[in-house]
Amino acid sequence: MHVELSEALPALVALIEGHLLRERVEPVRTPLSPEALLERLDLALGEQGVPFGDVVEQLHEVLAVTPTTASDHFFNQLFGGRDGAAVVGEALAGVLNNSMYTYKVAGVHVLIELLLVKRMGALMGYDEPEGVFTPGGSLSNLAGMVMARNEAVPDLMDRGSDGRALRIYTSADSHYSIRKAASMLGIGRDNVVKVAVDERGRMVPEALTKAIAADRAAGHVPVMINATAGTTVLGAFDPLEPLADLAQREGIWLHVDAAYGGSMVFHPDFRAHFAGISRADSITWDAHKMMGVPLTCSVVLVRHKGHLTKHFNETADYLFQDDTDDLNPGTRSLQCGRRNDVLKLWTAWKTHGDEGYRRRVQVLRDNTLYAREIVEREPRLELVREPESLNLCFKVGGARADKLCTAMNRRGRAMVGHAFVDGEPVVRLVFLDPTLPRERIDAFFEALLLTAEEGELPEVSR
Amino acid sequence: MHVELSEALPALVALIEGHLLRERVEPVRTPLSPEALLERLDLALGEQGVPFGDVVEQLHEVLAVTPTTASDHFFNQLFGGRDGAAVVGEALAGVLNNSMYTYKVAGVHVLIELLLVKRMGALMGYDEPEGVFTPGGSLSNLAGMVMARNEAVPDLMDRGSDGRALRIYTSADSHYSIRKAASMLGIGRDNVVKVAVDERGRMVPEALTKAIAADRAAGHVPVMINATAGTTVLGAFDPLEPLADLAQREGIWLHVDAAYGGSMVFHPDFRAHFAGISRADSITWDAHKMMGVPLTCSVVLVRHKGHLTKHFNETADYLFQDDTDDLNPGTRSLQCGRRNDVLKLWTAWKTHGDEGYRRRVQVLRDNTLYAREIVEREPRLELVREPESLNLCFKVGGARADKLCTAMNRRGRAMVGHAFVDGEPVVRLVFLDPTLPRERIDAFFEALLLTAEEGELPEVSR
Repeated sequence: MHVELSEALPALVALIEGHLLRERVEPVRTPLSPEALLERLDLALGEQGVPFGDVVEQLHEVLAVTPTTASDHFFNQLFGGRDGAAVVGEALAGVLNNSMYTYKVAGVHVLIELLLVKRMGALMGYDEPEGVFTPGGSLSNLAGMVMARNEAVPDLMDRGSDGRALRIYTSADSHYSIRKAASMLGIGRDNVVKVAVDERGRMVPEALTKAIAADRAAGHVPVMINATAGTTVLGAFDPLEPLADLAQREGIWLHVDAAYGGSMVFHPDFRAHFAGISRADSITWDAHKMMGVPLTCSVVLVRHKGHLTKHFNETADYLFQDDTDDLNPGTRSLQCGRRNDVLKLWTAWKTHGDEGYRRRVQVLRDNTLYAREIVEREPRLELVREPESLNLCFKVGGARADKLCTAMNRRGRAMVGHAFVDGEPVVRLVFLDPTLPRERIDAFFEALLLTAEEGELPEVSR
Repeated sequence: MHVELSEALPALVALIEGHLLRERVEPVRTPLSPEALLERLDLALGEQGVPFGDVVEQLHEVLAVTPTTASDHFFNQLFGGRDGAAVVGEALAGVLNNSMYTYKVAGVHVLIELLLVKRMGALMGYDEPEGVFTPGGSLSNLAGMVMARNEAVPDLMDRGSDGRALRIYTSADSHYSIRKAASMLGIGRDNVVKVAVDERGRMVPEALTKAIAADRAAGHVPVMINATAGTTVLGAFDPLEPLADLAQREGIWLHVDAAYGGSMVFHPDFRAHFAGISRADSITWDAHKMMGVPLTCSVVLVRHKGHLTKHFNETADYLFQDDTDDLNPGTRSLQCGRRNDVLKLWTAWKTHGDEGYRRRVQVLRDNTLYAREIVEREPRLELVREPESLNLCFKVGGARADKLCTAMNRRGRAMVGHAFVDGEPVVRLVFLDPTLPRERIDAFFEALLLTAEEGELPEVSR
């Protein structure tokens, strides 16, 4: 029925140590098909249990075929590396298992969440922020949209939509979670207005102004401007100050999706990108991206205290029984039972300080520029855009980027993704692991060029 | 900028071992005020970091004041105990850090999720289930409501609501997440119809029939019937077969919120409670409740394959690049980046088998009946309802239950919550820890009666 953790602990340590060793020896793995994995592993669950020692052996096997996202061969997503400090906090959260809805049950961890919200809000220029950790940037953006919508149509949360078209403005380069949230929230995807971006991938305020005017003329209800601070493909920052002016003039909620770029606020070189963000009504910021904390660690910050509680609180006398709302984050969260996503961030931040994250951003940016030089120097590579932050988008002569990235993975050389810029596939290389040695960047390009030369690239199946 | 996990590992082990020891010695703690905690702990984050060894010392302090939810003095919520097998899986997920959106990045863990969905769906009588793990029961219920709404109003996800009243039916005793989801999704809380329950807390199908007829007459659009399998306060199961008949006759989506009660499906004595559940369109089931897995581990299961993808998929060519939708759970999840909530459940289930969970349910139920006998025997205690599953609701002579539960916590004797039944506060005692010794149940009641006798109960602050 259960295993004592004290007895399982040596196995956990052996599993982690084994994984770290294998990751060094085999930093990237040739992917196996589902059929091959199912043949190799005994995953099936039975009527009878299996001795825990045998399950541990099977876990060693599972770990051995798990795609490595923390190795120096992983460039596929907007996260990477592994910070032992954060992992310790994450593992402890699982051992403690405090559900983050009430002070009675979560105690000091509620204070840690409040402290992080205050600190992160202050970095964004908020005086008295409210905030709550959510299970990821998509849901932080959704929370922003719920508040924006409810503020625009005050009785909607009780009476439901009145059928008017509620309009959401976001750049053509913004994350798909905006469209997804509009779908989920009953706003409708057709009511997401994709605003034009400039050559660098930044929303064009004049285009937004026109779109809002046209919507007002048509009797639609403008609800939210979503500005992106760090777009998914180009890493671009929308111009926040003019967008804040516009939002203020029009009386529209301004949300900033800084899921990816938010952590650049630590670095003075990028502070100008954040000018105006303190005027945003809400902000999404994922610490699991650039701050190297395990997934997920996302916060939605709100400029005016009370908005989250106003739009997310429900009476539940079987749950909220003691203490004030401020100490019971369940009154402002999207969930009821909620895991502790804050201890890992606190542990890491305490260890590194703001200064550590400033250095991290510096190193990541330096690596980007180092790679940019390689692309510039190498005639077979073509830079598609100057890197706005950490994303390097380029083409490889003689090879379609999408097929090339798939081949890099299938041949067990590196995990890297493609994207589309101006309708053309490009390699999107991102640098999120601050421990990445320069030689690994060199080696990545060598492998990429070799793969392009070898030809016979696989079809991309989507 | 970062700490090597290999170097942090001994500290993690020492932290866990220290916590387990302290938890045995001090299974429940006198709660400290926020002010006292802030004075005692050095939580503040600084410009400069702190040596990791010092942070580890501070973590020891944090752990020492964390409310204990895994000890044998915790009866406060619908989770409890600690299964070392599950904790090992949880800790490994944090080390691996695979985001659960694509097969490319999550590999074998996608197969584990698919296998769990199939197994859990099969236990509910589904032939070809679809499913996805969400960050908790509230969001699993929300996912069910999104699908129900979109099926009732097919163009809503693109065009937004047309202003008609979309109606959700749920019992008066159901979880507050139904109301919350209706608010978030733009359906509106006024459109949640609270259907009457019988003396045992089960939804009355006749009352539901009348409510639907009245709504149809008024031109409203019935969207979803939410049946609860295991209510929060009484642990009651709505009668699923008649509700399925009704849903089928009326053409309304039937969702079953089995977040709490779902795990009782392992036990033959409770199988009758599940009759009809295979006809539900979607089901919520939280493994972090009765299966003893750390928070969160919630699945939404769907009877017909394709519904999740239909209502949650968005095109994102920078993310979904290889493999089929079936292998890319990001095409059916609420989130984009998503943590691995499945390895912990797989590890535990593999170890215990169905049989282990059957025994777990048996032990939990036996403990409930043992406690029920004490309440029956003791003249100062009054049983309010026969326990439907694991929840024991009773009154204590001479003491208001809400104040009494608060006093039990403030005096460091046990964590237990109150609830309201027939408008009166009652103690809601729940048994979720299968390792709880009988003597602890005896001791709980001794402490409760002593606390009632001592009087001078604190005010409940909410």
